[in-house]
Amino acid sequence: MSHSHEQEIEDEFAGVGDTIASATRVTPGHALRPEDIALQDAPPAEDNAEYALWLGDDSLILAQRLSWWISRAPEMEEDVALGNIALDLLGHARSFLTYASKQWGKTEDELAYWREEEEFRNLRLTEQPNGGFGETIARQLYFAVYQELLYTRLVQSTDSTIAAISAKALKEVAYHVDHATQWCLRLGMGTDESARRLQHALNLMWPYVGELFQDEPLNERIAAAGIGPLPSSLREEWDQRVSAVIEESELQVPQAKAAMAHSRAGDHSEHLGYLLAEMQVLARKHPGASW
Amino acid sequence: MSHSHEQEIEDEFAGVGDTIASATRVTPGHALRPEDIALQDAPPAEDNAEYALWLGDDSLILAQRLSWWISRAPEMEEDVALGNIALDLLGHARSFLTYASKQWGKTEDELAYWREEEEFRNLRLTEQPNGGFGETIARQLYFAVYQELLYTRLVQSTDSTIAAISAKALKEVAYHVDHATQWCLRLGMGTDESARRLQHALNLMWPYVGELFQDEPLNERIAAAGIGPLPSSLREEWDQRVSAVIEESELQVPQAKAAMAHSRAGDHSEHLGYLLAEMQVLARKHPGASW
Repeated sequence: MSHSHEQEIEDEFAGVGDTIASATRVTPGHALRPEDIALQDAPPAEDNAEYALWLGDDSLILAQRLSWWISRAPEMEEDVALGNIALDLLGHARSFLTYASKQWGKTEDELAYWREEEEFRNLRLTEQPNGGFGETIARQLYFAVYQELLYTRLVQSTDSTIAAISAKALKEVAYHVDHATQWCLRLGMGTDESARRLQHALNLMWPYVGELFQDEPLNERIAAAGIGPLPSSLREEWDQRVSAVIEESELQVPQAKAAMAHSRAGDHSEHLGYLLAEMQVLARKHPGASW
Repeated sequence: MSHSHEQEIEDEFAGVGDTIASATRVTPGHALRPEDIALQDAPPAEDNAEYALWLGDDSLILAQRLSWWISRAPEMEEDVALGNIALDLLGHARSFLTYASKQWGKTEDELAYWREEEEFRNLRLTEQPNGGFGETIARQLYFAVYQELLYTRLVQSTDSTIAAISAKALKEVAYHVDHATQWCLRLGMGTDESARRLQHALNLMWPYVGELFQDEPLNERIAAAGIGPLPSSLREEWDQRVSAVIEESELQVPQAKAAMAHSRAGDHSEHLGYLLAEMQVLARKHPGASW
């Protein structure tokens, strides 16, 4: 896919978007509006941009995973709940990616649709397959608690854009935590079979937890500049909170070893390629057919 | 799929749901909450139930179509917008189906996941393939304007549940109309290519418009009882409003003949089968794997 093809898409709409109201101006569940971020004067510094990219990729990839459940969940109630969570995450992703993209003179769409697998910075946990409903809930519990702790700290960020996006997103993430918690309780204290399945799912996702709290060189600089916390500093509270939910659900906290992972360096599992293929195919291969 | 299998799923959670808070109690974009409707004393009369089923199926099937676009749209902004519209429609569907299901001693899930193709009552327009983005927008324009006119009348329904669901849904549908309108203007007045594609899409969806305004025997009874309008009574205003958007977009109002359709009797296009296969497969075939 060449730059000229992108140019072609842009040309198709050149000058149109400026003159009429946005077709998508009502987007419930958004964080700080990406449109507002795009209009800001100052691009982020390189480290801030890279950090925003990490945050955006985590939400983008998990949103893509969760959206699969819409109209496929085993209960209609769940279609709506998981769909809303996916759209919340997509909203955070748009904001963070728009912010990051300003540093590199790109757009959120270029970052979402035109990067290769090794350029994605999302944590390994977010790209794990949906599996059964239990796996999805286990992944949600681990990630949502992590994200709530992280965003709570980011509200104090010296980077005011990252702080603003996190503050708006935090209300949504609190609901995601609650959703995962209620499902753990329901499945864990349900029947023997539902408890057995959830325990299996919790065990299966556990090896990817370690990476959430791995301090990368960028994290050290981010922490030193007061932009965000060291991931390792969130671990203790995460352990307490997640253990409490698992124990209240009458299940066991997994003991499995952490998997080696360097996702922030672009080293991903084989699952990400398939996920990106689906997410990017229309924007990349058939922009003509879609528009 | 036998009753015993459904029973098995219910048994897995028997008694669990009553004792803890709903895991999905926050569902932004819902109409009158299906949970509340399920708790109401009086089931609807047979005609009211069948009418609610028609309304619910229209929204359910269109929601399923639109959810495909989430994380596949050519712009991230669109992922969120179409996703929100899909979840709005899923919300309306849940409310109408829950209400209908009380007449037959069933649940919304049974109506969504356990009916066969010929038991679905959705209009042919709602099951049309997404095609390119233009087709999706053309379908949205036609259907959203229809639904806005219909729900505006249903707010006055002698059936207070149908009136309440419609009143809450109306605010969302007004946004759907606006979304489709803005996109028609953007594409119609965009480049020659975007205008050509949207014109093609408007022509392609036009034959399915006729059925929206077809008066079935049930509609006559529903109108006589003050429950809802005769579909034919909505046509004039629909023509005016849709024509105005198309003309403002500098395109031509299609002249194609209406396709023969008896969707309300369960006679569907070949597209619905594939759509249902995807929507129902998890609930039907692998409830064990999902839970």
